[in-house]
Amino acid sequence: MTSGTLFVLGMGPGDPELMTLKAVRILSMVPVVAAFAKRGEKGYARSLAAPHLRKDAEMLHFDYPITTELPRESPLYRETLAAFYADAAGRIAARLEAGADVALLAEGDPFLYGSAIPLFARLSAAFPTEVVPGVSGLGGAWARARLPIAQGAEVLSVIPATLGAEQLACRLRRADAAVIIKLGRHLGKVRAVLTEAGRWQDAVYAERATMAGERILPAAQLTTDAAPYFSLLLVPPGKRR
Amino acid sequence: MTSGTLFVLGMGPGDPELMTLKAVRILSMVPVVAAFAKRGEKGYARSLAAPHLRKDAEMLHFDYPITTELPRESPLYRETLAAFYADAAGRIAARLEAGADVALLAEGDPFLYGSAIPLFARLSAAFPTEVVPGVSGLGGAWARARLPIAQGAEVLSVIPATLGAEQLACRLRRADAAVIIKLGRHLGKVRAVLTEAGRWQDAVYAERATMAGERILPAAQLTTDAAPYFSLLLVPPGKRR
Repeated sequence: MTSGTLFVLGMGPGDPELMTLKAVRILSMVPVVAAFAKRGEKGYARSLAAPHLRKDAEMLHFDYPITTELPRESPLYRETLAAFYADAAGRIAARLEAGADVALLAEGDPFLYGSAIPLFARLSAAFPTEVVPGVSGLGGAWARARLPIAQGAEVLSVIPATLGAEQLACRLRRADAAVIIKLGRHLGKVRAVLTEAGRWQDAVYAERATMAGERILPAAQLTTDAAPYFSLLLVPPGKRR
Repeated sequence: MTSGTLFVLGMGPGDPELMTLKAVRILSMVPVVAAFAKRGEKGYARSLAAPHLRKDAEMLHFDYPITTELPRESPLYRETLAAFYADAAGRIAARLEAGADVALLAEGDPFLYGSAIPLFARLSAAFPTEVVPGVSGLGGAWARARLPIAQGAEVLSVIPATLGAEQLACRLRRADAAVIIKLGRHLGKVRAVLTEAGRWQDAVYAERATMAGERILPAAQLTTDAAPYFSLLLVPPGKRR
């Protein structure tokens, strides 16, 4: 039997209309759909996919066993996640081996800090795999913030807030424009680094951009250091050349 | 009379199916469509838009008066482009003032090194403006190259090849993953910098990704230093953490 194809599907930043024609077509054809989410949360990719699916589509839901309960460097964190991914890959592989196409949903763009990357790494050598790019969460944020993020000879860096303060400052110094992602509980640290670098005043905070509950405001107007994991900061170039 | 709305429309990386549902809906509604292109070339955005347009849609074509004939730092270059943008903005403004919605086509994502940024800058304060993000050319390239570009705590930098060799090397050192854009006649310089940094062997070259004539290959297999302006190099992180 010919094996099925794995489609790693970029679902865009959250607005249902920001899905691509290709993602919608593939969703309407596949017999199996797989999606990751934080335990206890639905994740927006499933809601985006729902109206486009076949009535008989099988849903594979994978809920992360841990998120921030354990430090990422701990062996237990690594082992727990490895077992989780191995199980998910096995369940998807079983459908592919049986000849069924599988769409693996990826919020934003699949290959830009995407949660589907570990599954792609485990399955793409063994099965026909197509990666369908999507509008990134970053693209959704700078469009809604009405902030052209980079042009001309400017360097744009995407910097995870999970880095230490010194690393953050160092990477920021070598960028013209920056997007600080994965803010979560790191907002206080990031605020200190950006303030020290003289760039807090120009930064723009974006949360749930393009979705219901969207919140976009100058960073200087933030009143607390609490931010959801998927919020980000847009830091425009200091001065346009 | 109420003025029209300016839609700055991300058209995606070139595959017609990688347009968003939103871009297609807006294209099917607007009475005026504006697009930029290199003189003598059509630009792929117009071809992508064509099948979706109203039969009576008015097309505004703006052909760049210069591209690489003049050095970018020269006053004549700046003056010529400024006059060109002022004229284009004026013609779009006339339609908006008359109450017509205008879609300004932008290849890839409009705010990521987009050619529509100068027009957005000139028109968005005076007219209702909506920016519709698109799948970026970068996203199309790393999806087609099957190369997850960044994950976890990795820093991704987008670096224009137009920078000098020293600047290129410096920016590259502070990035884990990098995408070198606007290769054009700079490929030889970039090759030297990446080779010196020990990263040429892992780099992947992408040209016309997701389009007819797509060319994706290991940089090490490139036989000449000639590359179209819109080609790019994907430089994965040296070593995954």
